[in-house]
Amino acid sequence: MNPEPVVGIAGATGLVGREMISLLLQREFPHSELRLFASADSQGEVIEAGSEEITVEELGDESFNGVDIVLFATSAALSEKFVPLASDAGAVSIDNSSHFRMHKDVPLIVPEVNAHALKSSDKVVANPNCSTVELVLLLDVIQKLSPMKRVVVTTFQSVSGAGQDALDELWNQTLAIFNQQDLIQKNFPQQIAFNCIPQIDTFLESGYTKEEQKIVNESRKILGLPKLSITATAVRVPVFHSHAESVNVELERELPLETLNSALASAPGIEFFPAFDIYPMQMTAAGGDSVQVGRVRRDLSVPHGLDVWIVSDNLRKGAALNAVQIAELYLKKFA
Amino acid sequence: MNPEPVVGIAGATGLVGREMISLLLQREFPHSELRLFASADSQGEVIEAGSEEITVEELGDESFNGVDIVLFATSAALSEKFVPLASDAGAVSIDNSSHFRMHKDVPLIVPEVNAHALKSSDKVVANPNCSTVELVLLLDVIQKLSPMKRVVVTTFQSVSGAGQDALDELWNQTLAIFNQQDLIQKNFPQQIAFNCIPQIDTFLESGYTKEEQKIVNESRKILGLPKLSITATAVRVPVFHSHAESVNVELERELPLETLNSALASAPGIEFFPAFDIYPMQMTAAGGDSVQVGRVRRDLSVPHGLDVWIVSDNLRKGAALNAVQIAELYLKKFA
Repeated sequence: MNPEPVVGIAGATGLVGREMISLLLQREFPHSELRLFASADSQGEVIEAGSEEITVEELGDESFNGVDIVLFATSAALSEKFVPLASDAGAVSIDNSSHFRMHKDVPLIVPEVNAHALKSSDKVVANPNCSTVELVLLLDVIQKLSPMKRVVVTTFQSVSGAGQDALDELWNQTLAIFNQQDLIQKNFPQQIAFNCIPQIDTFLESGYTKEEQKIVNESRKILGLPKLSITATAVRVPVFHSHAESVNVELERELPLETLNSALASAPGIEFFPAFDIYPMQMTAAGGDSVQVGRVRRDLSVPHGLDVWIVSDNLRKGAALNAVQIAELYLKKFA
Repeated sequence: MNPEPVVGIAGATGLVGREMISLLLQREFPHSELRLFASADSQGEVIEAGSEEITVEELGDESFNGVDIVLFATSAALSEKFVPLASDAGAVSIDNSSHFRMHKDVPLIVPEVNAHALKSSDKVVANPNCSTVELVLLLDVIQKLSPMKRVVVTTFQSVSGAGQDALDELWNQTLAIFNQQDLIQKNFPQQIAFNCIPQIDTFLESGYTKEEQKIVNESRKILGLPKLSITATAVRVPVFHSHAESVNVELERELPLETLNSALASAPGIEFFPAFDIYPMQMTAAGGDSVQVGRVRRDLSVPHGLDVWIVSDNLRKGAALNAVQIAELYLKKFA
């Protein structure tokens, strides 16, 4: 690939798309041109990208001619339609939707964890679900020290994962409560202001939501542990940015906390909080690049157990940043 | 005991104390007189209790003369001081603080679970921690069907558990964010508006908080399972009322979901939500008496596992209601 590629962003005007633009510039991602694609509604909108002003183009069948890498921040339905068109046009696609993640020929990459799984022949690369990315960064550090027997995770997910309209909905519902007005509810199945909703995405026959099943399936694929015992409960909380997770890990053999803590302190992508009383929160993680890991405790309810609390900005490491890192990895390995 | 006792409430002007007054009246708790005690600040305040107006008395060494039952909604320090004085005056104390809960001679009672543990000779009875009460109602139903191997719980606790000032703090911090003013923080160790705080109470040397350790210790005592394998992560969420909990239970042997669901549907104190897509939330539980149980799933990460979501109003079943129920049980058994 051209070491100064033409880069496209599909879905450039959404929350994740805008983060992608900002991260490409901030990280000085080498590119000869940046092209922005969105729906017809946004066509003609001018977006400032550093010193440049870029006019948004309508995403269409012919969008990808001459584009080398496309970052997709689109819905699963749009990715299903447009990623193959990008491939036909010779571009490499890095897709943030769920559509290709579990396809057996598509690698699902978190660069700190499974960079090795990315091959030069890959024309489509999938970016994991926001709640999976932070989890696998932690689990990868653990599994390198001791095999995992079982993982139980409960998430505290912010509304930004559901887009700009969802941010507005939390804001407007909260204001409506202060002003004693009726609440308008569109983006969430229930009231989100001052309430936690134990449903993200739709339900499967098993009773788990798709979000919960994604955490299970995607973690197994990224970690290369297809039989990993893992269960998830995914909950939306009335917070604007960042996802927190309460993670319980049962290990096959003893892992001294000092060994784990020192591995966490030097792990790429992780910011480790060693003191019990200084812990990560959504407030501390929002806007940052790392997965913040804290409250590491020895769970005495099993012979070798751990309780850990992790937080990460779901729009950045959970979405846009990881996609940009995949693009960087691709260039580094194959340009 | 007199079947129409003189009832006292210590800490009557706080959130839990006020719920106690309202529940005693609503449930037509038999009493010949209701006396309200609080700190000197509230002395002389007149509280409407049904058709009566009751003047608040200052809680003092002589308060309990002639009182038969005292419900304590006071701090651990005040309970430590005043409960023995109530005993000396011949009153039965039902204490909502943590002070006596783990004393080996004090029963810790959730009437639906361990009514049998209350004896006529008990002059002090402890009311469990709010996050423990709802959990043991669920676990008791499960353990009667199949022995539990291990429990992993993560809580989503509302601010009302920390009192009226804490409710005001969430309200005022949220308003300050809307008005772009500085946030005032007094009741919580970190900002609570639009943020989750993985700390409730102070830290122990193990890295767990006292709240987390209470869930472990108190559940074991109430269930009569001193070796129950259980671990907890307790998190404060920006919600006014009710505590939610994500509960994972590993069982010793197979328990068909139909068996569990039908037991939950008929369990006293539990409101069961059988459909996946109609689940309990803090919104649905606030102001109610029951422990709402939903999202019961078969966790496939272990041979016999369950994921469950429970919610209850922490001021009612989690505190005031359970205390009143203990008083009712005492009268029923021993009056």
